[in-house]
Amino acid sequence: MVIVMRKGATEQELETLKKAIQELGMQVHVSKGEERTIVGLIGDKRNVEGFPFTSYPGVESVVHVTHPFKLASRDFHPDATLIDVDGVQIGGGSIVVMAGPCSVENRDQLLETAFAVKQAGAQILRGGAFKPRTSPYAFNGLGEEGLKLLAEARELTGLKIVTELMDIENLDLVLEYADIVQIGARNMQNFPLLRELGRINKPVMLKRGLSATIEEWLMAAEYVLSGGNPNVILCERGIRTFETATRNTLDLNAVPVVRRLSHLPIIVDPSHGTGVAGYVPAMSRAGIAAGSDGLMIEVHPNPAKALSDGAQSLTIQQFASLMQEIRALVAALGLRMEGVEEAAGVRSV
Amino acid sequence: MVIVMRKGATEQELETLKKAIQELGMQVHVSKGEERTIVGLIGDKRNVEGFPFTSYPGVESVVHVTHPFKLASRDFHPDATLIDVDGVQIGGGSIVVMAGPCSVENRDQLLETAFAVKQAGAQILRGGAFKPRTSPYAFNGLGEEGLKLLAEARELTGLKIVTELMDIENLDLVLEYADIVQIGARNMQNFPLLRELGRINKPVMLKRGLSATIEEWLMAAEYVLSGGNPNVILCERGIRTFETATRNTLDLNAVPVVRRLSHLPIIVDPSHGTGVAGYVPAMSRAGIAAGSDGLMIEVHPNPAKALSDGAQSLTIQQFASLMQEIRALVAALGLRMEGVEEAAGVRSV
Amino acid sequence: MVIVMRKGATEQELETLKKAIQELGMQVHVSKGEERTIVGLIGDKRNVEGFPFTSYPGVESVVHVTHPFKLASRDFHPDATLIDVDGVQIGGGSIVVMAGPCSVENRDQLLETAFAVKQAGAQILRGGAFKPRTSPYAFNGLGEEGLKLLAEARELTGLKIVTELMDIENLDLVLEYADIVQIGARNMQNFPLLRELGRINKPVMLKRGLSATIEEWLMAAEYVLSGGNPNVILCERGIRTFETATRNTLDLNAVPVVRRLSHLPIIVDPSHGTGVAGYVPAMSRAGIAAGSDGLMIEVHPNPAKALSDGAQSLTIQQFASLMQEIRALVAALGLRMEGVEEAAGVRSV
Amino acid sequence: MVIVMRKGATEQELETLKKAIQELGMQVHVSKGEERTIVGLIGDKRNVEGFPFTSYPGVESVVHVTHPFKLASRDFHPDATLIDVDGVQIGGGSIVVMAGPCSVENRDQLLETAFAVKQAGAQILRGGAFKPRTSPYAFNGLGEEGLKLLAEARELTGLKIVTELMDIENLDLVLEYADIVQIGARNMQNFPLLRELGRINKPVMLKRGLSATIEEWLMAAEYVLSGGNPNVILCERGIRTFETATRNTLDLNAVPVVRRLSHLPIIVDPSHGTGVAGYVPAMSRAGIAAGSDGLMIEVHPNPAKALSDGAQSLTIQQFASLMQEIRALVAALGLRMEGVEEAAGVRSV
Repeated sequence: MVIVMRKGATEQELETLKKAIQELGMQVHVSKGEERTIVGLIGDKRNVEGFPFTSYPGVESVVHVTHPFKLASRDFHPDATLIDVDGVQIGGGSIVVMAGPCSVENRDQLLETAFAVKQAGAQILRGGAFKPRTSPYAFNGLGEEGLKLLAEARELTGLKIVTELMDIENLDLVLEYADIVQIGARNMQNFPLLRELGRINKPVMLKRGLSATIEEWLMAAEYVLSGGNPNVILCERGIRTFETATRNTLDLNAVPVVRRLSHLPIIVDPSHGTGVAGYVPAMSRAGIAAGSDGLMIEVHPNPAKALSDGAQSLTIQQFASLMQEIRALVAALGLRMEGVEEAAGVRSV
Repeated sequence: MVIVMRKGATEQELETLKKAIQELGMQVHVSKGEERTIVGLIGDKRNVEGFPFTSYPGVESVVHVTHPFKLASRDFHPDATLIDVDGVQIGGGSIVVMAGPCSVENRDQLLETAFAVKQAGAQILRGGAFKPRTSPYAFNGLGEEGLKLLAEARELTGLKIVTELMDIENLDLVLEYADIVQIGARNMQNFPLLRELGRINKPVMLKRGLSATIEEWLMAAEYVLSGGNPNVILCERGIRTFETATRNTLDLNAVPVVRRLSHLPIIVDPSHGTGVAGYVPAMSRAGIAAGSDGLMIEVHPNPAKALSDGAQSLTIQQFASLMQEIRALVAALGLRMEGVEEAAGVRSV
Repeated sequence: MVIVMRKGATEQELETLKKAIQELGMQVHVSKGEERTIVGLIGDKRNVEGFPFTSYPGVESVVHVTHPFKLASRDFHPDATLIDVDGVQIGGGSIVVMAGPCSVENRDQLLETAFAVKQAGAQILRGGAFKPRTSPYAFNGLGEEGLKLLAEARELTGLKIVTELMDIENLDLVLEYADIVQIGARNMQNFPLLRELGRINKPVMLKRGLSATIEEWLMAAEYVLSGGNPNVILCERGIRTFETATRNTLDLNAVPVVRRLSHLPIIVDPSHGTGVAGYVPAMSRAGIAAGSDGLMIEVHPNPAKALSDGAQSLTIQQFASLMQEIRALVAALGLRMEGVEEAAGVRSV
Repeated sequence: MVIVMRKGATEQELETLKKAIQELGMQVHVSKGEERTIVGLIGDKRNVEGFPFTSYPGVESVVHVTHPFKLASRDFHPDATLIDVDGVQIGGGSIVVMAGPCSVENRDQLLETAFAVKQAGAQILRGGAFKPRTSPYAFNGLGEEGLKLLAEARELTGLKIVTELMDIENLDLVLEYADIVQIGARNMQNFPLLRELGRINKPVMLKRGLSATIEEWLMAAEYVLSGGNPNVILCERGIRTFETATRNTLDLNAVPVVRRLSHLPIIVDPSHGTGVAGYVPAMSRAGIAAGSDGLMIEVHPNPAKALSDGAQSLTIQQFASLMQEIRALVAALGLRMEGVEEAAGVRSV
């Protein structure tokens, strides 16, 4: 951290500041330039988190030269994190696809979708039992009934289950059924919830908030990691910008940025990222080519009858066709689809 | 709601769509233009909330011609809502000022601030006992101890108390002490929490989310209103934009927009809106001049020692001086300060 | 400027970087922290403008600790700049109002508006003869004919003229008629045009770009100032954000920020800032209360017949009524309206 | 276009509006809903471009149901536009790569880069002779000297030349040397310049403005097309958002959106889009996978010595390595590299 003094700040002001810094357990390093004096702080920056240096007389601004996250940082954990979801690997160089309906609506819809996405090559089934909805009048999920249907689909297909948790109240319930606990964009900075997730022993998939910087997103991951749960999967799902041609602006730049800054795996969700089924194939391919560890895609047997997010759901046929493209792309990039090589290995014996 | 058909959509596609609309209990009104056919939907739009019309063949886009909120709309409630907080009026043409520290830190800090802001003309004391913090390593509030200190400050000064609730877990606890329950920007779309707030009988102050449109903000209010609690106060506290010279971009345009669209009172928070104490007086004056019902301002006896948000806190002297400016402005605008007329009345006897 | 080295950067990398910095004529100041080494650069930062330090091995990032503008900075010019437009003062503590139609449409429209805004207290007449339009099919101004009408209106009313220049081709033509040359938001970073404006001897009103940071805006002013023209007026007219309830998001925070960073006067344009006539009075009042040096407001005798921007134009009556409010506000803030004191002086004789 | 009446608008207001619409040469189609009456306008919407309907009493809002561009629209030009740049095809299903330095700095730098990018598979050489720079103190290009060097590089390598035009003054000069005239992001809405480009007979590459919606971008293209020049290439180069981890936010969503709305070819510029050389390979791959017609990439023999944009320039080796990845990707996607098939054909003889 560097503190920039105002032009004309006095020696007395500088001394007062230095004293305050030292009291926080940090060393001080002063550098007098032509226009400005700058003060470097040396030590564990967590000591000075949120300290109001700009309230000190003579201080103009505070400049952060390192990122505030530590456990989420690649600096302190150079190797990529590999997450094992009951046999399915996320983050180890293979590409994993999570697919399924936005909401679990009924048994037929879920099972038809589950068998189809399994057949097409997905490893993980998505489906919401608790749905955040902008309107209080909209369908908001089947609750536990939905979770039970997901468990049945897992039983029948072997797919793992990822489903959203919206509040601490339902944590135990969701943990009973989910293989991965999904935290939605609107809850990315629900700090009490994040603290609870630090105490569980299942992987957490943390979606990026609509207006969250990548740094804030990694700080949200830091909450979970610092609580003792090392298994955080990041999911880019679009940010809010001025553009209205898409529901959100899927920010694929986040993929190489996260790769550089962090060791955590990152998944791309082009369904929410664009909000338009017709744009999902292009952005799925782009997500893989950008280097993500996988995709999360909404699929519905009949999008025109979907109770939520129909406009962005692929049909079963569209999904199967996309998966063929993805496989070709994965091969061209020298990667492999999760689940595929091992099967090949077994067969080769 | 208007559905726009693609150029070249067939009669068959139009018929299928019309049938779907009618099954949702809406009437259909078709209008064939030179380039496009458009389909108007007539009826209660809550019937079609979230329905995936764009998944129907031949449909290009869906255009919303009315706002999705109803209880929050001025159309259905032409008179401004007046909220009585145990004798302090919000929204009735008088200007109310809420002031106090970002966080309750200790008894001395809180009481010194409370007496001072009361003296300067504030009617409501703010202070956080539960603090949302971007970093898991930062101070996050005194919890119930903080609430007790707020209650003591109320006892001693007569100020009403507004304090933040972060989760359903602490709802009963916060209700025991608060006069107004504040919901922070990051929780504006915490839907389970909003539903609970619909069931309480205390006013809720709902801060605008960092990337929330005004429409989404009013939909969040709709959650509370539709649950049965009519007392929602909106609070503009800055949105996230590309500009980094201020912590957030305080969007004062929201004041006249909310006035036009809704009957709910609106408060402006220039402290979070700018993040810089030096900008708070200008934006406080501007907030009043834009037509808000009041201000929420962070004040600290010694910002340089504040445990949170020191950089944006006014000193007691700065706040007192700002209140003098506000009073002159309020008089020039033909408004009155909440609490002052009555005092004047008493004196005139 | 501070250069942050990567964790693990070698001594050799540091030496190479130091050498490069010294070759640019700057001094180096190295500070070794626990996690990172940081390198301070001391000297005239214009020496290193745009230098690709992040291409050097071992460099993680470059952090700017001072602003890149110099002539526009209050640090180097502590007193506020006062601009004299042929007798009308801008920036000297009095409030100036510029008003008139978006486009000059015809003689009757312009003269009716000019006499009316003069009567209501405006000092400067606005009106576009060259109009930037998003569509190639829309009305784009009367050109020189419009300029001649503006000159006639000046002759008849005594108002000064501000009008937009869109390209270097028309610079001489516009200079022949205008008292203030307006540069629109879309031209804020038209650098060849800015360079030309540095060579003229009339004031330039520089509107903020739709997505320009305040720093970039002041750098655009720096272009004009560094060319030798000291008379730049800034005009905040709204930025582009995700919010669609207003045409733009008028960013009044820019007023105190510019006040702090620069000595140049700043005007607020609530007409473009909101795009909605009904929001103009509130945001005009707020602009004054925030500390601007004046307002620019669109007025039309019959907005429903306007050839451009009718939706955001006030009628003559609405403008007159707003001016009364502004006068009361100006008095309450201890300011004065430009032109008024002198009139009072004359009368007092 | 649909006009939404206010709740409670009178019959008289509706009649006045209808009359105004008919006078503009449009037909009216009224639809009375439960809450609102909506009025559809039928006819050529260019008749009503910019008409201030919201200034009419009783009108609440205007909703656009079709896009404002016509010549740029795929509706009116279903086949993709194929642009022939003196033998190099853009937009016909093959992938074209434009590469070279940000600025032309000197003969050695340019020729070394040109031979290297040619060797690696690029078809078009980029290089700026006129550079838009945020600071008036920064290097702003060699001017005509730079153009001559580009022409020499073309002569020696056979590469085509794309270079930026910043103003009308230099149009003839740039046309003398360039094969494609590049319009930078800051000039995307420089309307006088766009009008001139409609009259030339060379292709124009139009970069997306920093805060331009896709619709505005296509309207800028419409300016050129409506002037009579059918050869417009779009170039996505990043938009401005709140995220600061990248210089801009490369919006790859624009690729499928433009594909759907328009017939014009689209190129992706990951160098400006991210601003960081390390992110360029990932976003180049993603740009191709998203369906773009090609890439524009900054390459410099020694980025650490570059006079502009060194931080985002690839070295010659990095570029060669990226081109290998691109070729594999292009093959996997069933596409072909521009220039390659013909070479193969020659060899097969």
